[in-house]
Amino acid sequence: MHPNDPVAWPHGARCAVMLAFDFDAETLWLARDPANAKRLGVLSQGTYGAKVGVPRIIETLDEADVPATFFVPGWTAEHHTGRVESILRHGHEVGHHGYLHEWVDPQDPAREEEIFLKGLQALQRTVGVKPLVSRHRSSVGLRWPSKRIAALHRLPIRSVLAARCALRCAPMAARSLRHLIRDATLGYRSPAWEASLNLMALIDKHGLRYDSSLMDQINPYHHVLADGRRGPVELPVHWSLDDAPFALFSVKSPRTIVSNEQILAVWQDEFSEIYRWGGLFSLTMHPQVMGRPSRIALLRAFIAWMRSFPGVWFARGAEIAQAWTDACLSNRGIAP
Amino acid sequence: MHPNDPVAWPHGARCAVMLAFDFDAETLWLARDPANAKRLGVLSQGTYGAKVGVPRIIETLDEADVPATFFVPGWTAEHHTGRVESILRHGHEVGHHGYLHEWVDPQDPAREEEIFLKGLQALQRTVGVKPLVSRHRSSVGLRWPSKRIAALHRLPIRSVLAARCALRCAPMAARSLRHLIRDATLGYRSPAWEASLNLMALIDKHGLRYDSSLMDQINPYHHVLADGRRGPVELPVHWSLDDAPFALFSVKSPRTIVSNEQILAVWQDEFSEIYRWGGLFSLTMHPQVMGRPSRIALLRAFIAWMRSFPGVWFARGAEIAQAWTDACLSNRGIAP
Amino acid sequence: MHPNDPVAWPHGARCAVMLAFDFDAETLWLARDPANAKRLGVLSQGTYGAKVGVPRIIETLDEADVPATFFVPGWTAEHHTGRVESILRHGHEVGHHGYLHEWVDPQDPAREEEIFLKGLQALQRTVGVKPLVSRHRSSVGLRWPSKRIAALHRLPIRSVLAARCALRCAPMAARSLRHLIRDATLGYRSPAWEASLNLMALIDKHGLRYDSSLMDQINPYHHVLADGRRGPVELPVHWSLDDAPFALFSVKSPRTIVSNEQILAVWQDEFSEIYRWGGLFSLTMHPQVMGRPSRIALLRAFIAWMRSFPGVWFARGAEIAQAWTDACLSNRGIAP
Amino acid sequence: MHPNDPVAWPHGARCAVMLAFDFDAETLWLARDPANAKRLGVLSQGTYGAKVGVPRIIETLDEADVPATFFVPGWTAEHHTGRVESILRHGHEVGHHGYLHEWVDPQDPAREEEIFLKGLQALQRTVGVKPLVSRHRSSVGLRWPSKRIAALHRLPIRSVLAARCALRCAPMAARSLRHLIRDATLGYRSPAWEASLNLMALIDKHGLRYDSSLMDQINPYHHVLADGRRGPVELPVHWSLDDAPFALFSVKSPRTIVSNEQILAVWQDEFSEIYRWGGLFSLTMHPQVMGRPSRIALLRAFIAWMRSFPGVWFARGAEIAQAWTDACLSNRGIAP
Repeated sequence: MHPNDPVAWPHGARCAVMLAFDFDAETLWLARDPANAKRLGVLSQGTYGAKVGVPRIIETLDEADVPATFFVPGWTAEHHTGRVESILRHGHEVGHHGYLHEWVDPQDPAREEEIFLKGLQALQRTVGVKPLVSRHRSSVGLRWPSKRIAALHRLPIRSVLAARCALRCAPMAARSLRHLIRDATLGYRSPAWEASLNLMALIDKHGLRYDSSLMDQINPYHHVLADGRRGPVELPVHWSLDDAPFALFSVKSPRTIVSNEQILAVWQDEFSEIYRWGGLFSLTMHPQVMGRPSRIALLRAFIAWMRSFPGVWFARGAEIAQAWTDACLSNRGIAP
Repeated sequence: MHPNDPVAWPHGARCAVMLAFDFDAETLWLARDPANAKRLGVLSQGTYGAKVGVPRIIETLDEADVPATFFVPGWTAEHHTGRVESILRHGHEVGHHGYLHEWVDPQDPAREEEIFLKGLQALQRTVGVKPLVSRHRSSVGLRWPSKRIAALHRLPIRSVLAARCALRCAPMAARSLRHLIRDATLGYRSPAWEASLNLMALIDKHGLRYDSSLMDQINPYHHVLADGRRGPVELPVHWSLDDAPFALFSVKSPRTIVSNEQILAVWQDEFSEIYRWGGLFSLTMHPQVMGRPSRIALLRAFIAWMRSFPGVWFARGAEIAQAWTDACLSNRGIAP
Repeated sequence: MHPNDPVAWPHGARCAVMLAFDFDAETLWLARDPANAKRLGVLSQGTYGAKVGVPRIIETLDEADVPATFFVPGWTAEHHTGRVESILRHGHEVGHHGYLHEWVDPQDPAREEEIFLKGLQALQRTVGVKPLVSRHRSSVGLRWPSKRIAALHRLPIRSVLAARCALRCAPMAARSLRHLIRDATLGYRSPAWEASLNLMALIDKHGLRYDSSLMDQINPYHHVLADGRRGPVELPVHWSLDDAPFALFSVKSPRTIVSNEQILAVWQDEFSEIYRWGGLFSLTMHPQVMGRPSRIALLRAFIAWMRSFPGVWFARGAEIAQAWTDACLSNRGIAP
Repeated sequence: MHPNDPVAWPHGARCAVMLAFDFDAETLWLARDPANAKRLGVLSQGTYGAKVGVPRIIETLDEADVPATFFVPGWTAEHHTGRVESILRHGHEVGHHGYLHEWVDPQDPAREEEIFLKGLQALQRTVGVKPLVSRHRSSVGLRWPSKRIAALHRLPIRSVLAARCALRCAPMAARSLRHLIRDATLGYRSPAWEASLNLMALIDKHGLRYDSSLMDQINPYHHVLADGRRGPVELPVHWSLDDAPFALFSVKSPRTIVSNEQILAVWQDEFSEIYRWGGLFSLTMHPQVMGRPSRIALLRAFIAWMRSFPGVWFARGAEIAQAWTDACLSNRGIAP
């Protein structure tokens, strides 16, 4: 299997769709400039994500019957705990997204680990999600420790004929997934998508299974650790599949706000070709951006449009990382 | 009543529309850089708002028969007094918008209050509008002191069958509103939408009733003051419902100037979904931007488009704040 | 006559169209950073204006049979003399545009005058155009000294029935205009549209008749000098009617390059409303921007589109300034 | 022959199309800020060009059967040698693009030459391409030393009736071209399109034949060296015919990401007018930008659209430079 080959997704799906929401709330602005802590107007942009964005997005995902992944900084979990709980309650995955959306200097690995743990601990303390395994799991290797998540592969995917999504069609499996997801945080996304060589070792050491911060591929791949072992799965991202470059305005760095039509054009063109190739369509959104009224309408329309293609598998990050690992195991010799 | 629930607008309207114009004139440029005072070319952009923008906008609102709110810095009232008088004469509301469009350091509350008062005093001295009550109105509570403004609730709203707007259909009520509006300034909008924790107390202390500077909601809400009392009503705003990010160019911070079609697309998508939710559509414009010939055509077209929906209530900020307060009173237990 | 009223253009035209080209060539880049003098790549953007832009624009104007105004910095006249001569030879007007596209500090009026004269002298020395009158023309008042230019008012304007433009329909008048235009420079446009209070006095003192640098009106108006006399006519401009914000890219200040369709949409919307109002449509272009192949196609299409409206008068800056002055004389009491 | 006249392309083609890819990979980011060497997220944007971009672009060019030119910095050839070999193997040309995408200070010609040679040597050491002649080729004059490349002129060009491209129709010639191209690097493109007066002498001295870095023409032209000899052919470029201004995002200098439709509109308008004039359509792309799924679809669509015009000659830089030189020789007296 060549890295650019079509991925063997579960159920023969051509394309996996990962809908990810970075629930930064106020941290997006606090991390840019600590003085923003006193700027109510600037902060209110982030607050919108919690007050309106998350409830409207959950409602929209519910109506469309698709699962999503929310990457949550520790600070957000502490200050908007109820919102993060409702994300979990609706069956979505919560991933790790730093503590205060810090962009840590890669020269300072001690600080990097400190922030990494601070975010993880906040997630555990507030909403009870934690990595699946302890640091000392040397024998675990590539497999996920839980049989429950492996069951996901047996879920039917949505097709033209089966318009209801997988999780609704297989309520038992969905229930166990939900149970797992309320317990575990399995993936990491770095704030502003910045990363260091050290980061992949940190992710591995602390029991997470995937990263979603880099732009060097369309398909997932495995990082290789310093000792040669396979590290976390990477679920790649890209600026053109992010809502912020299109619709996040900042008075200090003004940017054109574009129409739904123009965003849809870019996203549809990306989706169509990835679907043609057979790969992973990974879309990054922010409740404070995508939660605006017009963008909720965009989300609704775009999900409906993707669902009109046969063989599209809407899945959480953890499911996609697991599916990729399994596909690799059945194709030994794949380049990492 | 949950904060994201449809608002119980007067007359059963689904959606309230607040057309607001920030009449900054030259202050927009003077506040950015005092050296602009000598730069005739830079300043002339602001002057346009007074010389052409305001008259053309008033004309367009008259033709469409809809009321608007103009937020006016004290300096503008001093230097373009005739224009502010004509705004009042045509039945529009004048709100408080600082003195010289200053962005006051939130660390300096004394300076914040000084500027706040300087702007208020300029409005009173030049065009005679002032807050409705003295500082010592402890017994007033939530209610508006004037019965005249309460009469607004009885105005019929425009519907598909009643194509003429409320104020024309109810000339007596309109006359009393106009009388009030020529006397009072009831709302505050901070320059550049910046705000501090102290600001809401200032607004309350000096007898204003609403703020329109924050982005954390679609619907109005009540601020809570330090002593636990309900503070001003917030009428939220957003960058995507502002003409400046789309059409205000600055040689020092160049920005793409977009076509009417693209602006219309964003605003229509926002309106359509807010209409669907049942809430407040709050649009911020600037005479120096929206007063350009092409944008006057946009304003005319966009108002006509919104009027084609049934149950849309075009109202001034003061009316919307009052309507929200009344809706809250009849739904005790609402979260602020 | 109110400043916002329809202008009484010659021949009953509803709308005057001023096509202006700022022929900055390399000065656009030299003025931004003197170190650009060694940067062949940066400079080559400006060189394009001279090597390709001007010839292609002249060709396009010839085919459309419309006159234009080229504002030329002294440095450009010195380094691209042949190109400026060909502009004059094709019947277009040459205006004054500084020497090296300098943005002079308004605090330094001596330097302001020095640059002003340096540019004027370069134009005279290279292509022989000069102001019409000496500095001591106290008795001249408002009128143009030459009867030849006054003859322009008797030129028929292009209408739907008379598809050929004025100058071709009236060859005798056109000949005398061309003669005048090869002798005289009558208008000034400040580099980057920056100006000072002192500038209008300089323009008047040195015998120019109009300025085209400010954004505070749509219609022309007269500046008032310090001594109360009427100063130069202003022919206003605007960023949205400039090709640079849409299509001039700079590696140091990257900006979105937009399609012809989007530029056309903005310009057509501006034109349509100005035509409705009855005023001046003043379009600013740059040979290094508008001379690109795609933009030549845009210029051709846009001129053709404007010509499809009845009562459109395509004219040079000098003709428009004179027409405005005459309209004012026949409407005593107009606000300056 | 006037510089703006239609070019006499081989086989009577109206328009030559040069598809160029600047294969910067990580150097684009390393050159902007050395600290990016530690920023895995930033670097991963460039890595994409090597991992996904180049293979997908080669595949798309193969399907369309058109040749292209890849400008490759020495560092890229060292770190992605296999990718550069596959470029050569598929019959595309490899040009010189500096070593680490440095923008050398034009004040420091010694450093300029050092970097120039470092890049050339890396190309030779890694993939074996080198300039065709030694430094001491005083007698060579204007002609290409190899008869093999001259044979390109006899290749039929693609027309509406002959839908397969030249190289496929003339396999023998194609084979010898490929042989040559695997041996030689003939053209230079400066990183960020910056250049100095010294650069053209360097290009000439080190045996390259063309430069492609300046924006002052549409058609090719010959540089004139300090000693009056004809220097390298220039194959001009432009920001509007570059994918980066439309689709390269950087977190430090955010820029609007536009849709395929908008890019296509700009490129088609440029092509249509250049085709009308008869000249060179030179398009610059980057594997890390154009290799995104949506942009591969754009490339496919745009090539197909250009191929629908009769008389379009898709050629590598070396062929175009040679064709221009020949056209000049048969039109003595042409301005350089």
